[in-house]
Amino acid sequence: MRTLKLTVEYDGTDFEGWQVQRHQGAEHRTVQAVLERAFQQILQERVRIVGSGRTDSGVHALGQVAHLRTRSRVPLHRLLRSANSLLPNDVFIRSAVEAPPSFHAQRKARRKRYRYTISLFRSPLTARYAWHVPARLNMALMRREARRLVGRHDFRAFHATGSVATHARRTISALTLRQHRDSITLDIVADGFVYRMVRRIVGTLVAVGRGLYPSVTIQRMARGEPSAPVAPTAPPHGLCLMEVMY
Amino acid sequence: MRTLKLTVEYDGTDFEGWQVQRHQGAEHRTVQAVLERAFQQILQERVRIVGSGRTDSGVHALGQVAHLRTRSRVPLHRLLRSANSLLPNDVFIRSAVEAPPSFHAQRKARRKRYRYTISLFRSPLTARYAWHVPARLNMALMRREARRLVGRHDFRAFHATGSVATHARRTISALTLRQHRDSITLDIVADGFVYRMVRRIVGTLVAVGRGLYPSVTIQRMARGEPSAPVAPTAPPHGLCLMEVMY
Repeated sequence: MRTLKLTVEYDGTDFEGWQVQRHQGAEHRTVQAVLERAFQQILQERVRIVGSGRTDSGVHALGQVAHLRTRSRVPLHRLLRSANSLLPNDVFIRSAVEAPPSFHAQRKARRKRYRYTISLFRSPLTARYAWHVPARLNMALMRREARRLVGRHDFRAFHATGSVATHARRTISALTLRQHRDSITLDIVADGFVYRMVRRIVGTLVAVGRGLYPSVTIQRMARGEPSAPVAPTAPPHGLCLMEVMY
Repeated sequence: MRTLKLTVEYDGTDFEGWQVQRHQGAEHRTVQAVLERAFQQILQERVRIVGSGRTDSGVHALGQVAHLRTRSRVPLHRLLRSANSLLPNDVFIRSAVEAPPSFHAQRKARRKRYRYTISLFRSPLTARYAWHVPARLNMALMRREARRLVGRHDFRAFHATGSVATHARRTISALTLRQHRDSITLDIVADGFVYRMVRRIVGTLVAVGRGLYPSVTIQRMARGEPSAPVAPTAPPHGLCLMEVMY
């Protein structure tokens, strides 16, 4: 049995996320399903592709990582070329390497880096990959409040459902905001992310930048206080999974 | 009568080019038509939008320039905001300024700058705005041959139809190739462009970079020799009209 580690890029616009899901019999177009279909056609066997984690509908990836196990002895470069020739234009396997049998794309992931792009001006040429925020944003304030979120915290306020039952302790090792001429990018590295955590951090920091959230609120959110408000969510199309670290 | 000069950005993917055209009664989706409809709705009068020139189906623009004349006295910033609120997501008017009555977006244009982007790797996240060329390209050779095209030449070999009847003398004032990590960009400034000239120059330089076109062929093409081969055409989606100079 061989274990193959894949690095995958996709434009999430026309996908209903990464993970295969069946609702009432109808199959949705997901990246995982599209990849599985391509490999099944090449390998003529049932293939399961396991991603480092799901990405939501509309979220992009430059460096999603996945693995598959196969008995096939087809050389790697041929497998890669065949798979890419079968994939639609919005998915591309950037690399495929042999991994040890113990490798597991999800369980062995130590950290992930996401990038979120905010465009300060409406722009048809970046609209697909950036959230347009027409308001003036106070970058100094955003940077200051962003620093409160770095480190180990209970991120329940940044969990989509706000469920108290879920274990929400995660460690953010880096959170960087960069100001460009027409955009702001936010890079965030963590050992894990609760559901929609990046989008909720971005939603919160934009609210901060617009002067809508006092500092004390962020402090309460960062402490995981049950009475802290649930963070607003930024839209998916500004988000991109950049890399998964093992 | 007021003359307004508009700077327009659009994603050309879902347009059949800039210019209104009617074939057998069916109207195509063009940028000009979409703009005219928006302004007619606001101004409640017949509006004609005149662009600096047409762009082909699939070609993008960051700085297309157009003008319109109107009797309306609506303040400029309100007109701009109303028009943009009516426009679809793939078109946006970046600026609107008052221009002298003699201004004409097409006739007064002195030079235009186009950018063509070639991606060296297949990439779902840039596929919409770059031509993927999987071959190895010799940049030194491309730069050397590109220099032969700078200056005043008879560009009939770069004219889509290759028609000898058409006057094809144009002056390229700058032609710059830049190598990036995953892409090559080509910036070209000229006082005018014959039909599909940029795409044919790019098609030719890529053929040069792949070692398919000897230098002598480019020399014959640059001299406008009637027996020179007609240049190959790069696809439209890598092309973007960057600015129009007056």
